[in-house]
Amino acid sequence: MVKAGIIGSTGYAGQELVRLLLQHPEAEIVWYGSKSYIDKRYDEVFGNMFEIVDARCMDDNMEKLAEKADVIFTATPQGLCASLVNEEILSKVKIIDLSADFRIKDVSVYEQWYGIKHTSPQFIGEAVYGLCEINREQIKSARLLANPGCYTTCSILTIYPLVKEGLIDPDTIIIDAKSGTSGAGRSAKVQNLYCEVNENIKAYGVASHRHTPEIEEQLGYAAGKPLVLNFTPHLVPMNRGILVTAYASLVKEVTDKEIRSAYEKYYKAERFVRVLDPGVCPETRFVEGSNYVDVNFKTDPRTGRVIMMGTTDNLVKGAAGQAVQNMNLMFGLPEEMGLLLVPVFP
Amino acid sequence: MVKAGIIGSTGYAGQELVRLLLQHPEAEIVWYGSKSYIDKRYDEVFGNMFEIVDARCMDDNMEKLAEKADVIFTATPQGLCASLVNEEILSKVKIIDLSADFRIKDVSVYEQWYGIKHTSPQFIGEAVYGLCEINREQIKSARLLANPGCYTTCSILTIYPLVKEGLIDPDTIIIDAKSGTSGAGRSAKVQNLYCEVNENIKAYGVASHRHTPEIEEQLGYAAGKPLVLNFTPHLVPMNRGILVTAYASLVKEVTDKEIRSAYEKYYKAERFVRVLDPGVCPETRFVEGSNYVDVNFKTDPRTGRVIMMGTTDNLVKGAAGQAVQNMNLMFGLPEEMGLLLVPVFP
Amino acid sequence: MVKAGIIGSTGYAGQELVRLLLQHPEAEIVWYGSKSYIDKRYDEVFGNMFEIVDARCMDDNMEKLAEKADVIFTATPQGLCASLVNEEILSKVKIIDLSADFRIKDVSVYEQWYGIKHTSPQFIGEAVYGLCEINREQIKSARLLANPGCYTTCSILTIYPLVKEGLIDPDTIIIDAKSGTSGAGRSAKVQNLYCEVNENIKAYGVASHRHTPEIEEQLGYAAGKPLVLNFTPHLVPMNRGILVTAYASLVKEVTDKEIRSAYEKYYKAERFVRVLDPGVCPETRFVEGSNYVDVNFKTDPRTGRVIMMGTTDNLVKGAAGQAVQNMNLMFGLPEEMGLLLVPVFP
Amino acid sequence: MVKAGIIGSTGYAGQELVRLLLQHPEAEIVWYGSKSYIDKRYDEVFGNMFEIVDARCMDDNMEKLAEKADVIFTATPQGLCASLVNEEILSKVKIIDLSADFRIKDVSVYEQWYGIKHTSPQFIGEAVYGLCEINREQIKSARLLANPGCYTTCSILTIYPLVKEGLIDPDTIIIDAKSGTSGAGRSAKVQNLYCEVNENIKAYGVASHRHTPEIEEQLGYAAGKPLVLNFTPHLVPMNRGILVTAYASLVKEVTDKEIRSAYEKYYKAERFVRVLDPGVCPETRFVEGSNYVDVNFKTDPRTGRVIMMGTTDNLVKGAAGQAVQNMNLMFGLPEEMGLLLVPVFP
Repeated sequence: MVKAGIIGSTGYAGQELVRLLLQHPEAEIVWYGSKSYIDKRYDEVFGNMFEIVDARCMDDNMEKLAEKADVIFTATPQGLCASLVNEEILSKVKIIDLSADFRIKDVSVYEQWYGIKHTSPQFIGEAVYGLCEINREQIKSARLLANPGCYTTCSILTIYPLVKEGLIDPDTIIIDAKSGTSGAGRSAKVQNLYCEVNENIKAYGVASHRHTPEIEEQLGYAAGKPLVLNFTPHLVPMNRGILVTAYASLVKEVTDKEIRSAYEKYYKAERFVRVLDPGVCPETRFVEGSNYVDVNFKTDPRTGRVIMMGTTDNLVKGAAGQAVQNMNLMFGLPEEMGLLLVPVFP
Repeated sequence: MVKAGIIGSTGYAGQELVRLLLQHPEAEIVWYGSKSYIDKRYDEVFGNMFEIVDARCMDDNMEKLAEKADVIFTATPQGLCASLVNEEILSKVKIIDLSADFRIKDVSVYEQWYGIKHTSPQFIGEAVYGLCEINREQIKSARLLANPGCYTTCSILTIYPLVKEGLIDPDTIIIDAKSGTSGAGRSAKVQNLYCEVNENIKAYGVASHRHTPEIEEQLGYAAGKPLVLNFTPHLVPMNRGILVTAYASLVKEVTDKEIRSAYEKYYKAERFVRVLDPGVCPETRFVEGSNYVDVNFKTDPRTGRVIMMGTTDNLVKGAAGQAVQNMNLMFGLPEEMGLLLVPVFP
Repeated sequence: MVKAGIIGSTGYAGQELVRLLLQHPEAEIVWYGSKSYIDKRYDEVFGNMFEIVDARCMDDNMEKLAEKADVIFTATPQGLCASLVNEEILSKVKIIDLSADFRIKDVSVYEQWYGIKHTSPQFIGEAVYGLCEINREQIKSARLLANPGCYTTCSILTIYPLVKEGLIDPDTIIIDAKSGTSGAGRSAKVQNLYCEVNENIKAYGVASHRHTPEIEEQLGYAAGKPLVLNFTPHLVPMNRGILVTAYASLVKEVTDKEIRSAYEKYYKAERFVRVLDPGVCPETRFVEGSNYVDVNFKTDPRTGRVIMMGTTDNLVKGAAGQAVQNMNLMFGLPEEMGLLLVPVFP
Repeated sequence: MVKAGIIGSTGYAGQELVRLLLQHPEAEIVWYGSKSYIDKRYDEVFGNMFEIVDARCMDDNMEKLAEKADVIFTATPQGLCASLVNEEILSKVKIIDLSADFRIKDVSVYEQWYGIKHTSPQFIGEAVYGLCEINREQIKSARLLANPGCYTTCSILTIYPLVKEGLIDPDTIIIDAKSGTSGAGRSAKVQNLYCEVNENIKAYGVASHRHTPEIEEQLGYAAGKPLVLNFTPHLVPMNRGILVTAYASLVKEVTDKEIRSAYEKYYKAERFVRVLDPGVCPETRFVEGSNYVDVNFKTDPRTGRVIMMGTTDNLVKGAAGQAVQNMNLMFGLPEEMGLLLVPVFP
């Protein structure tokens, strides 16, 4: 039984971790950390947990927690994990960080896009980027795991096979992404009020969103050289779900069959990536509550471009589900354990 | 392993049954019945089931199905189950009917409220009304089970203890209910289009909704005498969830403590009914995707009334979840098997 | 041209006042008051006003404003208007208060339900309760007008004719009300975040909501004696709209025709109250953006009750529209001026 | 007073035309045409029109209507207007066609993308494409007007100045568009049911949507040469609004100031196009119910691209509002008459 502690369990991603771990046959939650709700009953913060969780919120004391847990999840704002982690803690416990602190290898890129000083750059090198479908082997032996962002997971998995196989020109990639509002977090801001989000769609962080360098770095590894791209996120009036619509120019005359083969080469054996039937567009509703990523594509011979589409639940495969998938790999458990949840529709 | 066939698997309740049975350790689906999608791949009708269900839709042939299955679920419009069932079928297979055909003992009441002729009145007598928390023992030996309606389940469980204990005047009961739109079904009607339902709330079936006599019959048993009440359903712009706000006059000076005791007397040992803490109002979001019913109450000394509130997921405890709970009881399985799903929020 | 100043122009009701007054042929806004956005451009607070309003937010200085304006609207939290108003101001300018400060004649009832001390009780006596359809004549000469609450307007107009005509037992009135989320205001609270409100319905303020005594007082005048009733508000995932479903016992054998006659007696000549055709239930979507109140009823001979239903846009007839209607009356303008807006659907 | 007849008045665009014309000081509706609701009271089809419209639905008889009206609006499926129009009708009445029948000059392109035979190709030549901001002068004397599509209006106005001024490479244009669900029409289809659209976003018509050639043709005129582009529409869970996010490579080193100058050159004097302040992203909620198009842009020096954004209400400037704007021009009325509606928020 893996003992898990959660720092930041009262945000949306943290609470989703709780939901998943409660239904995981080999995990047990030993610490419900929170900054805002210390000593409050967890089921008072989240009414769905009434008569399910019988615990009070604890503080964010990672040292104390390292004594009790086998793994610590940090579902906290950028900078916190980096400020708490140290060699002694890492010698006792594995850390799965859902923030961006250890995702980007070049610390100057991190500091530039996030606008904060990295306080533990010495651990960036050993941290493993936890996109299971791509880095499975390294994840197994990681002690510090950088769990990918939600937009990032969906964007990379949607585009990866075509970059890796050299079918598209990496300099032409444009990612237009749409996210449900849980991605904006649970803090009280006027812009996230119901009446401000409902009946509205808008772009935000245009040409400046922090997930951009993370996508560029990972796709750059696949391309074998650095690349830059456009990434535009949009806020959609729904609770969960990310949809990525990505565009790129095909490098040469490639057939739909070749593109499909590329997707199948990388995903056929993957339990959580579903390559949809030809002509079927991914829809967020069909992955809701589950760990799936659905991908597909359409070519446009008129323009020589391919439109790649992917969708995932931002709180599951985009955050908590992927974290559990990483935990499974890191602790030698079956990768899909606790994650075979059938998507909830409608 | 219980072999289950579903007649009407392509409606919302039928699909929810599929979701639940797929995650049930002792059940196996052997028949995906449908009227509209015969021979079509099930995962083409419901994209969430892609790579999860590998089957095509079958017709509604109950005789053939009775050879293959241990239990048949009928998630179909009123009248169909009654038209298909016969003694030979019942001798081979158990039937859990999610329609109203066998819920009401007085066939004339059924025919009046539903406006159709009952074609198998001879089975009404033996049919067991499957509200597990109230009829548990009879359910265990039933071969024909009438699965309660969604509004009904939520209304009865919200009010039952106070009627049963004689704390309220049964002639004063008023039920104001609000439902998500999945309760309206999946057929193509202008009134259920997105733009017609969104940004709107309305009452419908005022003083004439078909769940009224079902609630009256069951609460009448609890009261020990027939009763009539007002039941007003409303359509709410959300996918899932029912909220019941019920009003009644207290028969005498009763304290909040006595009322709470009544709720606890009947529900303390119940896994799926949660009596909330004093002052906490039930909210549909906190039961979504789960088999829970959350109930609570508030007294108003100014008017001498009690306001009783309850909520449930209309597709789970209000339909498919309760059907599985009944199946568990009927087949000697642990009642909560496959149903301990943590509510999905947000 | 009536010169209007708005104190609290950056809340939802205040902004709706701006929308209506901008389209009013005989009004001009001279002051956009705000507590939180002083000196900020108004169209930066509300992007819909870009290139329409060219003004910056001002403070809440009522004395200064009284020099500039013919009428002051206060769309502010309870207590503020009472703390600012004085004889000198009232001698210079008319005040239409959208808060509750001057709605309730018995100051002790106000202080008990609102939990604050009233700082200007000397003006309660002269203040006119601005429900135009009922108090039209007094409104015309008022200098201090108490604009009714949103739930209140809809509840009273839905029930009034039957109380006034003595067709229902006033001791049996139960009001179950449902409101869109703009009624919760624009301040940053976790409970009003998109993901907390969306896909949810809940009751709140059960047996304790502040609009209760206001409804009781006004219906008491109609009944000719004090009454108490139950009022239960619910929060619905939509931006605008209130739906009231009210229940009462008929005092004697009354026909539907008699009830309809009562509604027509009071509303036939009313421009903004629409008595719907028999069998048609009011729906919030059909009044959105307009000043209409739609009402109708259904009797239930089984229980001897009548179900009364009414709907209005909480920001228009429930707040800003009624305030403009009152302004028209107070300044001798045609009552419907600037308010003949066709409801926006979908 | 312009006498207007509407063929197809019971769809969403047709009903929006009714809403706008009812509030237009110089227009009068003389014919509420409908295919599905002939002889039914119009206010029974749209409850918002109760006590506002006192008329019954008529058939689609254009010849009869030509005797009564000064202008006929056809808000009908593709092919109908082309099948009804003839020289005699055009000699009596002006026609504003909201369908695609006369938008595309090359009849073979029309027939290929729409999959139907054009039955009146002889009128294509004289038909004027009614994008007021671009073709104002020709519109004034048109007798057959092709009212632009919703996606088209928003896409063209968002991109036009940069193409016209040669600031972007026309071969690199990618348009990612998002629309509210009223754009899908009011016919009863499973895919447009509330529970299918709510909590979901999806792309559709990828690389094949019918608005593509219309956008290409109009932007081609601006570029001075034919162009092809990618256009991907998405369905968003909201009633109204279109958001366009468009991408293109800048042809050379251009400053933000030059781009802004291009937008201002074409739109500064335009009443219905608002060029937002630097850094402000267009949002659908801020144009809802109004005839505005809000546009803005952001450059990305890293990739050398510009991201252009635009939004409009698909039923107003994207359909009925633009039709009225065209009517105003065609009848010598002030262009903005009846259209200065303040956007409704929230």
